[in-house]
Amino acid sequence: MADAVTPRDEDYSQWYQDVVRNGQLAENSPARGCMIIKPNGMALWENMRDQLDQMFKDTGHENFYFPLFIPERFMEREAEHVEGFAKECAVVTHSRLTTDEEGELIPDPDSKLGENYIVRPTSETIIWDTYGKWIQSYRDLPLLYNQWANVVRWEMRPRLFLRTAEFLWQEGHTAHATREEAVAEAERMLEVYATFAEEYMAMPVMRGRKSESERFPGAVDTYCIEALMQDGKALQAGTSHFLGQNFAKAFDCTFTDENNEETYVWATSWGVSTRLIGGLIMTHSDDQGLVLPPKLAPHQVVIVPIYFDDDQEGPVMEKCERLQEQLEDRGVRVKMDDDQTQSPGWRFNEHELRGVPVRLALGPRDLENDNVEVARRDTQTKEVVPQDGIVDRVLDLLDDVQRGLYDQALERQEEETHVVDDYDTFKEVIEEGGFVWAPWDGTAETEARIQEETSATIRLIPFDREERASGPDMVTGEPSESRVLFARAY
Amino acid sequence: MADAVTPRDEDYSQWYQDVVRNGQLAENSPARGCMIIKPNGMALWENMRDQLDQMFKDTGHENFYFPLFIPERFMEREAEHVEGFAKECAVVTHSRLTTDEEGELIPDPDSKLGENYIVRPTSETIIWDTYGKWIQSYRDLPLLYNQWANVVRWEMRPRLFLRTAEFLWQEGHTAHATREEAVAEAERMLEVYATFAEEYMAMPVMRGRKSESERFPGAVDTYCIEALMQDGKALQAGTSHFLGQNFAKAFDCTFTDENNEETYVWATSWGVSTRLIGGLIMTHSDDQGLVLPPKLAPHQVVIVPIYFDDDQEGPVMEKCERLQEQLEDRGVRVKMDDDQTQSPGWRFNEHELRGVPVRLALGPRDLENDNVEVARRDTQTKEVVPQDGIVDRVLDLLDDVQRGLYDQALERQEEETHVVDDYDTFKEVIEEGGFVWAPWDGTAETEARIQEETSATIRLIPFDREERASGPDMVTGEPSESRVLFARAY
Repeated sequence: MADAVTPRDEDYSQWYQDVVRNGQLAENSPARGCMIIKPNGMALWENMRDQLDQMFKDTGHENFYFPLFIPERFMEREAEHVEGFAKECAVVTHSRLTTDEEGELIPDPDSKLGENYIVRPTSETIIWDTYGKWIQSYRDLPLLYNQWANVVRWEMRPRLFLRTAEFLWQEGHTAHATREEAVAEAERMLEVYATFAEEYMAMPVMRGRKSESERFPGAVDTYCIEALMQDGKALQAGTSHFLGQNFAKAFDCTFTDENNEETYVWATSWGVSTRLIGGLIMTHSDDQGLVLPPKLAPHQVVIVPIYFDDDQEGPVMEKCERLQEQLEDRGVRVKMDDDQTQSPGWRFNEHELRGVPVRLALGPRDLENDNVEVARRDTQTKEVVPQDGIVDRVLDLLDDVQRGLYDQALERQEEETHVVDDYDTFKEVIEEGGFVWAPWDGTAETEARIQEETSATIRLIPFDREERASGPDMVTGEPSESRVLFARAY
Repeated sequence: MADAVTPRDEDYSQWYQDVVRNGQLAENSPARGCMIIKPNGMALWENMRDQLDQMFKDTGHENFYFPLFIPERFMEREAEHVEGFAKECAVVTHSRLTTDEEGELIPDPDSKLGENYIVRPTSETIIWDTYGKWIQSYRDLPLLYNQWANVVRWEMRPRLFLRTAEFLWQEGHTAHATREEAVAEAERMLEVYATFAEEYMAMPVMRGRKSESERFPGAVDTYCIEALMQDGKALQAGTSHFLGQNFAKAFDCTFTDENNEETYVWATSWGVSTRLIGGLIMTHSDDQGLVLPPKLAPHQVVIVPIYFDDDQEGPVMEKCERLQEQLEDRGVRVKMDDDQTQSPGWRFNEHELRGVPVRLALGPRDLENDNVEVARRDTQTKEVVPQDGIVDRVLDLLDDVQRGLYDQALERQEEETHVVDDYDTFKEVIEEGGFVWAPWDGTAETEARIQEETSATIRLIPFDREERASGPDMVTGEPSESRVLFARAY
C-alpha cells in the first residue's frame, strides 16, 4: 500500500525517498550502502541500458566483460588513480569461511590470500594490463569496447541511486593510435550521453570539461554533462575521459606505428550509471510521485477496465483487450490492470505513483458512448474522447508528453541559470540555487576558497571559452579566461 | 593471428582451449580463476541472455537486482546452505587501502569491517531476508522474480566457461502460497531450460531430479538438465530447485493465508550460467574450431567480397552491400568482412574459427556469372549458386544448419546412451564414455562407492521411474526403484 508523498517544499530529501519508494523503484538493503533495485526500477534501467547500448553499437563499439576482482598491485601502477580510489575500496582478503571455537562464522585464517583483490571501483587498471597483451601494431587499433557491470565504491552517506556503495553502470574503454583520435572519441561519447539525456530522459544538460580538481583520477581531461535538479542543485550525469598515455605507460602498453616506431597507446574511458535514475526522478517527478518520460517508461500506457458486475465485465474487457492489442501492434508498452481486489481509484493512484505516462480508463458508460477516458500523468489532466482514432491519439500524446517534459525542464534550467560578475551577488544567487556562470582566474586556490565559502563547485568549464569571455575573477580580481559554471551539487 | 586447433582425438582438453581462444570467446585473467569474456563471447552470451529473458517474461517473471554483498551472518541461517558454500567464499573484510611503512599497498587496519561481507555465490539468503519484509498476505503471492548477475565461487581448478571463480548467470527466486504451486514452478522453469537448450542451443538434454548428495545446498529437490559432450562426459547445464520452506523458515518469512492462518512461504530458485557456453562448444565444435547454431551466433552470415583491383571493387562491393541489406531486412545478423589487408583465404579461416554458420563469397567471376559462393560451417561444404533467390536460400540454409546440428547431437547422444544391468559391464561402458542407465538401490553408500570406483556420478533420477523400472542394484543386489542415469561429468 502506498503512503503519501511528502511535498517538495516541505522536505525535498524526504520527497525524493517517498517518490523512490512509492514508485517501486528501489529500497535500502541489509548490505550497508547497497540498494535493492525493484522490478519497476530494473525495467526502467533495462530500457535505459538497451537504448544506450544501441547508441554505443551505432558508434562502432562492442561489449566485453572483465573480472570483478582487481589484483591489489594493479591499483598502485597509476599514482593518481590509486589515490583517487584507495579510500573507498572493498578488499577481499580470504577465500573461505569456517567456524571459530564458539561456533561463529569467521574468515578461515588458512585461506588468507597471497594477494588481496579489490572489488572493481572502475576497470582501467585490469583492462590496460590486458590491452598491453592485445595491442602490438597500429593494425590492432583502435579498440572500441564497453562493458555493462556492477562496481563498488564504499560510501558513507548512501542515497538510493545517487550515491550507493554498489551501483550498475557501463564503462567504455578505448585505445587509439593518436592523441587526436582519442580526444575525438571522448568528445563523441560525451555527445552520445548528452543526446541520450536530452532525447530519451528529456533532461537538458550542460556540456563542458572539468577543472583539474574534479578530474577522474588518472585522466588528462574529463568531459561531463551536468543537469539541474528541481532543488537547484546540479547532478553530474555522465563523464567521458581523455586519459592520454597515462594508463598505457603504467601498464607498458605500446604499439608499432606505421613508421615502425614504438609509441604508447592513447586512451579514453567513459561511463554512466544507475545514478541517472536519480537525475531522472529529480528532473520530472512531482508531489504526486514519479513522472517518467514515455521513451523510457517500463509501461507507457496503463489500461484500467472498470465494471461492477459480471454482465459488464465481458464487453468492457473485450474493448480493453482489443485496445491493448492495437497499441501493442504499434509498439506501445501497455499494462492492463484488471485487479478487481482494488478500486479503480486505488489503481489510478498506484499508476500515478509509478509514473506511467498515460492512463486509459474504460467503464460501462464509456462503452455505451463509444468513449474512453484518457489521463496524462505529467499535467494531471484528463479528458473523455471517442474510441475511434484512440490509437493515433495515444501515440501523439506520448510524443507530446516526451516533448512537454523536456520543454518544461529546459525552461526551468534557463530560468535558474544566472550570469554573475561579483562575489557578493554570487553568494546570494548560489544560496537560491541554480547554475551560475561566473568569472574564474583558473587557480585551484580560488576554486577551493569558493567551495569552502559557498559550497559551490565548478561544474564545468565551457568548451568554447571565447563565447563565455569575462572580466576579472570575482574573488581575486585576477584576469579570467572565461566564465565557468558553478553550482552546489549532488 | 589464429593458431592451429589441436584435434580432439589428440588432446581433448587442449582442443577445447584452442577452440575458445581461436573463436575469440574468452581468455584467462590476472585475477586468478576469473575470465575475460571477449567481444565474440559476450555477443554470444547476450544472445543467450536475451532469448532466456524473453522466455522468463513470457512465463510471467520480472527482473530485479539484489546487492553483490551478503552479510556474513546471513550465511549461517540455513545450515546446509552455509556448509555448501563456506569453502568457496570470497570474503570482504576491509573498506579502504593504505600504504604501510615500506610504501606497500595494504588493507587499512582502521577500515576493518564490523561485519564481513561475502561476495554472493548465490542470493537465496539476502533475497529471503527481504521477502520476509515484502510478503504479509496470500495477496502478495506469488513473487516471480529473476536477476541477471555475476557471482563468485572460489575455484581451484578453473576452466574457461566450465568452472570459473566469477561467472555470469541468472537466478530466479520465486515465492508461493502452496507446495504444489512451488513444485509446478520449479518444473516449469526446468522445461524452459530444456526448451532453450534444445531449440536454441541445438543441444539435446536429459531431464530429471538429482540424488540427495547432488542437491543444491538448502533444497528439498533439485531438477536438472544434463547434456552429453563429445568426449562422452556429461555436463549439468541448468538446475531448478524446489526449496520447500527451508529459506522461509531460516528468514522467518510467513504469510496469512485465505483462512487467516500464518504459514511459511514456499520457494523455488533456478539458474543457468555462462557455463552453457562451454556446453555449446563441446556439443557442436570440431577440429576446425567453433561451430555455432544460427539462432545464437553473433553473426549468422559473413559476406567476403573478393576483388583484385579498383575496377572490380565498385561492382563487387555494390553487390555485396545490396546482399547484406536484403539479408538484414529479413532479420539476419550479417557481418561484412572487407578487410583488404588480409587475403580471402585468411578471412575464410578466421570466420570458420569463429563459428559463423554461413559464409557468402563474391568475386569478379561470380559477378560475371550472377553467382555467389555459399559455404556452410557445420558440414564444411560449399557450392556456387545463382544470386537470384539467394536470400531465401540463405534463410532456408540457416534453418537447415540449426536442425542439422540438433539432429547430429541427438544421434550422438542416443548412440552413446547405454542400458546396463551388471557392474562389470557398467565399468567397461563408463570407461568408454557416455550416459549409462543402470539400476541403483537408492542409498548414498552405493552411490559413493560407484563414484569412488568408477568416477561416475548419478546425473539424474528419471521423473517417471516406472518407465525406467529395473531389477536389482548392480552393486549390492538390493531392490532398485528404477534405473538412474550415470556418467562421468564436468
